[in-house]
Amino acid sequence: MQDIKTYINQNKDRFIEELIDLLKIPSISADSSYKQDVKRAAEVVRERLKEAGCDTVELYETPGNPVVFGEKIIDKNLPTVLIYGHYDVQPPDPIDLWEKPPFEPVIKTTELHPEGAIFARGSSDDKGQMYMHVKALEFMTKNDQLPCNIKFMIEGEEEVGSVNLGWFLERHANVVSNDVILISDTSMISRDVPSITTGLRGLSYMEVEVTGPNRDLHSGLYGGAVANPINVLSKLIASLQDENNRITIPGFYDKVEELSEQERSKMAEAPFDLEDYKRKLAIGDVQGEAGYSTLERGAIRPTLDVNGIWGGYTGEGAKTVLPSKAYAKISMRLVPNQDWKEISELFQKHFESIAPKSVTVKVNAHHGGQAYVTPIDTLEYQAANDAYEEAFGKTPIPQRSGGSIPIVSLFEETMKSKTILMGFGLDTDAIHSPNEHFGIWNYLKGIQTIPLFFKHFARLKQEAKS
Amino acid sequence: MQDIKTYINQNKDRFIEELIDLLKIPSISADSSYKQDVKRAAEVVRERLKEAGCDTVELYETPGNPVVFGEKIIDKNLPTVLIYGHYDVQPPDPIDLWEKPPFEPVIKTTELHPEGAIFARGSSDDKGQMYMHVKALEFMTKNDQLPCNIKFMIEGEEEVGSVNLGWFLERHANVVSNDVILISDTSMISRDVPSITTGLRGLSYMEVEVTGPNRDLHSGLYGGAVANPINVLSKLIASLQDENNRITIPGFYDKVEELSEQERSKMAEAPFDLEDYKRKLAIGDVQGEAGYSTLERGAIRPTLDVNGIWGGYTGEGAKTVLPSKAYAKISMRLVPNQDWKEISELFQKHFESIAPKSVTVKVNAHHGGQAYVTPIDTLEYQAANDAYEEAFGKTPIPQRSGGSIPIVSLFEETMKSKTILMGFGLDTDAIHSPNEHFGIWNYLKGIQTIPLFFKHFARLKQEAKS
Repeated sequence: MQDIKTYINQNKDRFIEELIDLLKIPSISADSSYKQDVKRAAEVVRERLKEAGCDTVELYETPGNPVVFGEKIIDKNLPTVLIYGHYDVQPPDPIDLWEKPPFEPVIKTTELHPEGAIFARGSSDDKGQMYMHVKALEFMTKNDQLPCNIKFMIEGEEEVGSVNLGWFLERHANVVSNDVILISDTSMISRDVPSITTGLRGLSYMEVEVTGPNRDLHSGLYGGAVANPINVLSKLIASLQDENNRITIPGFYDKVEELSEQERSKMAEAPFDLEDYKRKLAIGDVQGEAGYSTLERGAIRPTLDVNGIWGGYTGEGAKTVLPSKAYAKISMRLVPNQDWKEISELFQKHFESIAPKSVTVKVNAHHGGQAYVTPIDTLEYQAANDAYEEAFGKTPIPQRSGGSIPIVSLFEETMKSKTILMGFGLDTDAIHSPNEHFGIWNYLKGIQTIPLFFKHFARLKQEAKS
Repeated sequence: MQDIKTYINQNKDRFIEELIDLLKIPSISADSSYKQDVKRAAEVVRERLKEAGCDTVELYETPGNPVVFGEKIIDKNLPTVLIYGHYDVQPPDPIDLWEKPPFEPVIKTTELHPEGAIFARGSSDDKGQMYMHVKALEFMTKNDQLPCNIKFMIEGEEEVGSVNLGWFLERHANVVSNDVILISDTSMISRDVPSITTGLRGLSYMEVEVTGPNRDLHSGLYGGAVANPINVLSKLIASLQDENNRITIPGFYDKVEELSEQERSKMAEAPFDLEDYKRKLAIGDVQGEAGYSTLERGAIRPTLDVNGIWGGYTGEGAKTVLPSKAYAKISMRLVPNQDWKEISELFQKHFESIAPKSVTVKVNAHHGGQAYVTPIDTLEYQAANDAYEEAFGKTPIPQRSGGSIPIVSLFEETMKSKTILMGFGLDTDAIHSPNEHFGIWNYLKGIQTIPLFFKHFARLKQEAKS
């Protein structure tokens, strides 16, 4: 029986190679032309789970992409940890900003990653972080150190809003029943500052279409007399936030959870260097809701971002067109107590109401999810805390993240178990962006820390019982 | 010797076929991949000019596309009419809104065109209108009715701002010297209401780029804390017009020519049915500068239109990105006394000054041109007036158009001769739009009217001499 550090040292080259093989598959769920690649990624994950020690592995079909399931039950009386992750990835656009092709992984050292980082779409979000659990299982089974049951539920539609996971959970609740859900799909503050994500923002993702005249017009003959849908859309978007960067949709803030001064000052203790933040993003200044710090704006406050806009002539040179239509994709990040369906409706109602008579607007909701906050005085959190302390020699900081994993709220609702978000990525991983990467140090540190969660969780459950 | 009506009747099928042949060539000057087609269109026009009776035809090379020149000098002591037109066309995008492919001309009847209209890119703007002059020349030479000299200067870069025509004129001023310039690249009020365009708006065409962070970011992790360049661009665009749809760029209106009440009430006499206008465009309401009528907004007032906008994720589905960059193409139509170079500078200065510190902006000027107004108490206008009266049995209405032919001001400056804009298109021709078309009635009526201009111009010049 080997200790985990020795095992990682002896196998790390293989661990990296296996992840690279998975990263080569362009499993882009948003684009239906990659359907076959998405399926192939699912099959590879199933095989790897089997090799790592699962007794049962299965691809569960859904109306969309399959869910990979695996389990190793060592004793029905012992608690069960469910690992959730996803094998699908974001589209790589804009493709021309990648230094290397997004599905041809390369290892490169950077200032933050002297041991090297793997550059590829999905390296951090979430293939790399998900695969840490597969390798942690391998260690535990090969070395007889699995202290409780383990299940895997790895889906292929997280990047399109987990649209069929509710469908799956309704039909297979007993298959995935568990005592705690463990997810690695977030980041930690820094290599030196381990953290556990205790809050996620919700999401409401909308698409709007503004129609002016029934055809594209010559901007010389009609300009100034007929409403231009791009000008109108710009005005409508601009009006959604006031001069303090507060969202103007009536009722939007009604249910927003306001943190106490105490909570806010605790948050402010997290290490953060504003100048360094601006330098790394090459921005002259930050910008956000008046009265809140950058950390607060990015985590505990709701937002409204245009994720995409298009209309008219966008090619080379000039075309003097007054277009018939203009479009935007607009998403709002939500905080606890804001209901995403209610916010989507408020948005739609408001957007329709402010459109001038000179245009018509269509508003469609894409997907969404509820915000999530987990308490830190639970056995599950304690187990994660102890795992980090043992692996890092430091107490992890509970941290709210600005991102969303819409499915987490659903898990609590349907499976009645707590979720622990042990993320090993860094904010600088460029997830959803060109040149996404995942540090090799982070990858191996995750593989080292995960078995410790199992150890402490099993111990604490045992202690609670007795 | 035949009269023009008989000649047209006997030859109209061939006139239409020849135009259709020319319309099949995708001579898109904005897109360099059509370079060969642009050249081919020039060569076809040259051949047709020769066949129609020009003694000299030539392709003059420029740094861009060639200028087709042709002339028939019958007597050096007689006046010379210079025909200006263009053989290049606008890009056909959005291509999927065309009922038939843009370069496969079809003839279809419509409510406005019971005799049929030719549907193709360039049919009205400007191949069809330019080709009327070629066929008018054919009639005049074949029937010994050319009363003065004629020259043709047909360029291939009008749709990209006539960028090399100044260069050409500098070098070949003597070649194109003339006593009047005749252009058919505008429209008339309606079939029943002939009109002569006496004013054109100027143009300043800009492109802006807004850069936020140095890479695309995850909108969950950074949204709310880092300025989103699309949101910022929307705010900047929205701020360029106030609640009265007046342009807010400081100094923008300083030199705008205000029309007298008398001129405005004369303009208001032109037949215009607002309900019909709205119905044809399928809009709930018009929209424009407070205090001005729709006709005024479209002709005598300056404008600001976004011709294209793009940024972020514009594909299928959803991507939660906070993009690094957002772009817009923005053009302003100008009125007499506004200098387009000055306005471009005012725009640039203002746009840069209103950008928040959280982003950087780049502003580039594409091209532009001065506005133009011609007096109606000239011999040249009288000749056009008399031609319309003879062809239509009605006095034409002098009309200001909202469009721009930037080169017209340059002509007056370099060639010291008046320009007469005898347009035979209709506002409904959908120029610059999908399903552009040109009525066969309009095409033939143009061919009929043009020789009458020559007749009256030569007569009036002769009378003025004696």
